[in-house]
Amino acid sequence: MTQETKGPSRRKFLTSAAALGAGAVAATTARAAGPDPLITEVQEWASGLGDGVDATPYGLPIQYESDVVRRNVEWLTADTISSINFTPIHALDGTITPQGCAFERHHSGAIELKKEDYRLMINGLVNTPLVFTYADLERFPREQHVYFCECAANTGMEWAGAQLNGAQFTHGMIHNMEYTGVSLRTLLNEAGLEAAGDLADKWVYVEGADASSNGRSIPMEKALDDVLVAFKANGEALRKEHGYPVRLVVPGWEGNMWVKWLRRVEVMDGPVESREETSKYTDTLEDGTSRKWTWVMDAKSVVTSPSPQAPITHGPGPLVITGMAWSGHGKITRVDVSKDGGKTWETARLAAPGEDKALTRFYLDTTWNGEEMLLQSRAMDETGYVQPTKAQLREVRGLNSIYHNNCIQTWHVKSNGEAENVEVS
Amino acid sequence: MTQETKGPSRRKFLTSAAALGAGAVAATTARAAGPDPLITEVQEWASGLGDGVDATPYGLPIQYESDVVRRNVEWLTADTISSINFTPIHALDGTITPQGCAFERHHSGAIELKKEDYRLMINGLVNTPLVFTYADLERFPREQHVYFCECAANTGMEWAGAQLNGAQFTHGMIHNMEYTGVSLRTLLNEAGLEAAGDLADKWVYVEGADASSNGRSIPMEKALDDVLVAFKANGEALRKEHGYPVRLVVPGWEGNMWVKWLRRVEVMDGPVESREETSKYTDTLEDGTSRKWTWVMDAKSVVTSPSPQAPITHGPGPLVITGMAWSGHGKITRVDVSKDGGKTWETARLAAPGEDKALTRFYLDTTWNGEEMLLQSRAMDETGYVQPTKAQLREVRGLNSIYHNNCIQTWHVKSNGEAENVEVS
Repeated sequence: MTQETKGPSRRKFLTSAAALGAGAVAATTARAAGPDPLITEVQEWASGLGDGVDATPYGLPIQYESDVVRRNVEWLTADTISSINFTPIHALDGTITPQGCAFERHHSGAIELKKEDYRLMINGLVNTPLVFTYADLERFPREQHVYFCECAANTGMEWAGAQLNGAQFTHGMIHNMEYTGVSLRTLLNEAGLEAAGDLADKWVYVEGADASSNGRSIPMEKALDDVLVAFKANGEALRKEHGYPVRLVVPGWEGNMWVKWLRRVEVMDGPVESREETSKYTDTLEDGTSRKWTWVMDAKSVVTSPSPQAPITHGPGPLVITGMAWSGHGKITRVDVSKDGGKTWETARLAAPGEDKALTRFYLDTTWNGEEMLLQSRAMDETGYVQPTKAQLREVRGLNSIYHNNCIQTWHVKSNGEAENVEVS
Repeated sequence: MTQETKGPSRRKFLTSAAALGAGAVAATTARAAGPDPLITEVQEWASGLGDGVDATPYGLPIQYESDVVRRNVEWLTADTISSINFTPIHALDGTITPQGCAFERHHSGAIELKKEDYRLMINGLVNTPLVFTYADLERFPREQHVYFCECAANTGMEWAGAQLNGAQFTHGMIHNMEYTGVSLRTLLNEAGLEAAGDLADKWVYVEGADASSNGRSIPMEKALDDVLVAFKANGEALRKEHGYPVRLVVPGWEGNMWVKWLRRVEVMDGPVESREETSKYTDTLEDGTSRKWTWVMDAKSVVTSPSPQAPITHGPGPLVITGMAWSGHGKITRVDVSKDGGKTWETARLAAPGEDKALTRFYLDTTWNGEEMLLQSRAMDETGYVQPTKAQLREVRGLNSIYHNNCIQTWHVKSNGEAENVEVS
C-alpha cells in the first residue's frame, strides 16, 4: 500500500530526523542541541523489570493515552441518560474502532441484560411466531462483516454554522466494527413469511428491551437483505453500552435503527410511524414539510489529523494528512483533499480499497510550506455520488435540519499548526 | 456470506426455538413448560433507566463476560515477568482480537515508555545513522494491514501429548489485529542503504527498549518487504503490554521477532546469532541437531467451539462448529473439518476469503446426532500446503521440540456435550 518503491533509494524524506555522528545526536528544530541522554544513557525502563503477565487479565490503554476517550457535550442534551458521547476519531488511525471508545447513544440509558434473561420474539405476519433464547441464536449459521454505524445526528450541530471545535465533536457519532451474528433473513425464514403474502409492501418493526424501546420500521426488502442480528463486535461480546447481548446491525442506515438489546421483530403490513421516525430522525425543510424515510447515510468524509484536537506540532516539511470516508450506499472509490478551501483538490491515497458500507482510511502524504490552510476532504462512492459542500446542502435542505448533514468540513490550519472549525463561503 | 438463500422458505431450521401460541410459550428441552415470565411480564430493565453516557469514558466488557480474559499457566514458567498469557480464543468469534484480551509475552516484563521518551535508532551499514522521535515517525507515509501474531511456542506443550485442556491454552498464543505504521523499508531508505553494498547477504538486527532487549536478526529481504514499524493496533495506540508506543510487525513470522518498544535497527553483514535465535526459538531434532531460522509460521487451524472451554450446551440438532485458520505463507484457501478423528472430512465455510497472513474464521453449519465426536480441523494455504497430523509432524521433527507445532488438534466431544483434549493415533 505504500507509495515508496521497494529497495534502497537516495531520496531523503525527513530532514528533521536526527543524524548520528561520532556518538552525538545532531540538533534539530525539534530537539535541543547536544547528546541526547535518551540515547547515550541507560534508562530506567531498560535496567529494571516491567509488569508480569498476571497484571491485567483484561487490559486498558496506558495512562499516557487517558485523553483518548469518549466525551459528551454538556449543553447538547438535558441529561446524560438520553444522550450521546463521541468517538475520539481525531486520535485514532486505521479503520477499526475499539469498543471501549466507540460512541454511545441511549434513549433511556445503557441497561444490563444477562444472556440467560435474553429473549427475541418474532411475531406478526409470520407462519409461526417464535421466541429465541441467546443459546438458540448461536445455533444458526453466522456471518461476519465490518460496517460503520453513524448516528443520523452526526455533524447535525453544524447546519447553522461552525459550532464545535474538534473532529470528535463534529464527526464522532460514528464507529466501525467487525460484527458477527445471524442474518435477520434467516430468523424471519425460520418463522415463515408465507403468511405475510406479497412481501413487496411489508415491513418489520424492531424494538429494544430498554424502557425507550426505540421502535423503528424497516422495509422488508432491507430486512431480507443484509441486516444482522449481531452478538459479537471486534471478536468479543458486544459491550453493555452497545446492546449486550444482541443488537441489530442495519448496514449503511442511520444508527438509530441499529436497535440495541433487540427484543422483538414484528412483521407488519405497513410502517408504525413511531416517534423515532416522525418527530425525530426526519428533516424539516424550508417550506415546513419534512423528509422522512431518510435511512441511508450518504457519502461523507472528514480530515481527522490535522484538526483542532490534533494540531501540527512540527515546522514546515513532510506532513501526513489523514481522515476517514464512508458511504451507506456502498464502497468509497475516491477521496480528494483541498488545502485552500475547495479551490484546488489533490486525490488522496486510500489505505485499502473501499469496502461495502465500511470506513475507508485515506492519506495525503504531502509537504507543508508552513502557511495557513483551509483543509477539506471530499468523498466519492461507487454510485458516482460526490460529497456536497455546505452551501449545496443548504440550498436543498435549508437550515432547519438536525439530521443527515454529510457536507464537506473545513479546518482552518494556522501557521502555528493549530486548527479551528470554520465555514468557507 | 450466508448459505441461506434470500427470500422466504418453508424449511424449519431450529426445532428448539419456542413457538408462540395464544400468548403462551411452548415448552422446549431448553426451557420449563408454561408461560415465560421474561416474555409475559415487564422486566426491571424495561421499566427503569440505565447508565448515562458519562458512565464510562473508556469502556470495559460487561460483568457477565468476566471469564473472557487472558490467562496464564502457573507451571509453565518460573515467574510471571518472563512469561506468557493466552488469548481466550474459545470465547471469541470473527477475526479481530481486541487488544484487551490479546495474549502477551514478555522477557523482562511490560515496561512503561512515554512517547516523549521514545527514540528509534537506525545504525550500522547505512549512509547516515539516524535517530527518530515518535513525532518524526508520524511524518512518514503510513500503511495499514491486518496480520496475525503467533508465538513460536504456541501449541508447544502438545509435542509430548495432549496436556492442556482448552483451546485458550493449546492455541491461545495468537492474536490478529489491524496495524497502522510506517514501513521499515521507508526508514531504512531514509538512512540510506548504499553503504551496505550488495543487500542480498545483509541482515538487520532489531532490539527493544526493555531490559531483555530481545534482539533478533532478520534477513534484509524480509526487512525490505512487509515489515512495519507500527504504532496503532485496531485503530488506537498500542497497549503497554503490546509495546507502546512502537513495536515491530513481522507478518507471518514468529511472534518473538515482533520486537516491542523497538529502539534500534542495525544493518549488519550477517546475523547476530543472539540468545533468542540460538538457545531459544530453534527446534532440536531426534539426532540432536537443531533447525534454526525457522521464522515462518506454517499453516495451522483449531476448532474454537465446541472445545473444552466451550462445550455443547444443547441436545442433538443444529450445531455451529467454528474455528480459525492462518498461514505465515499467505492466504488460507480451505479448511476441512472432521468429526471422526480424521477418517472423513467436510469442507468448512470461510466467513470471508482468506487474507494475506491474517486469521480466517471458518464455520461448519451441521447437525449433531448427539453422539461423541473426534473433532479436528485442517487448514490449507495458497502455496498448496496442508496442515499435518501430529504423527506426520513427529515423524519429521521427533519429540524434543518446543516451538513450531502446527499439527492438527483433536477435541473429544462426548455425548453430554463436554469436550476434552485428546490424541488420536
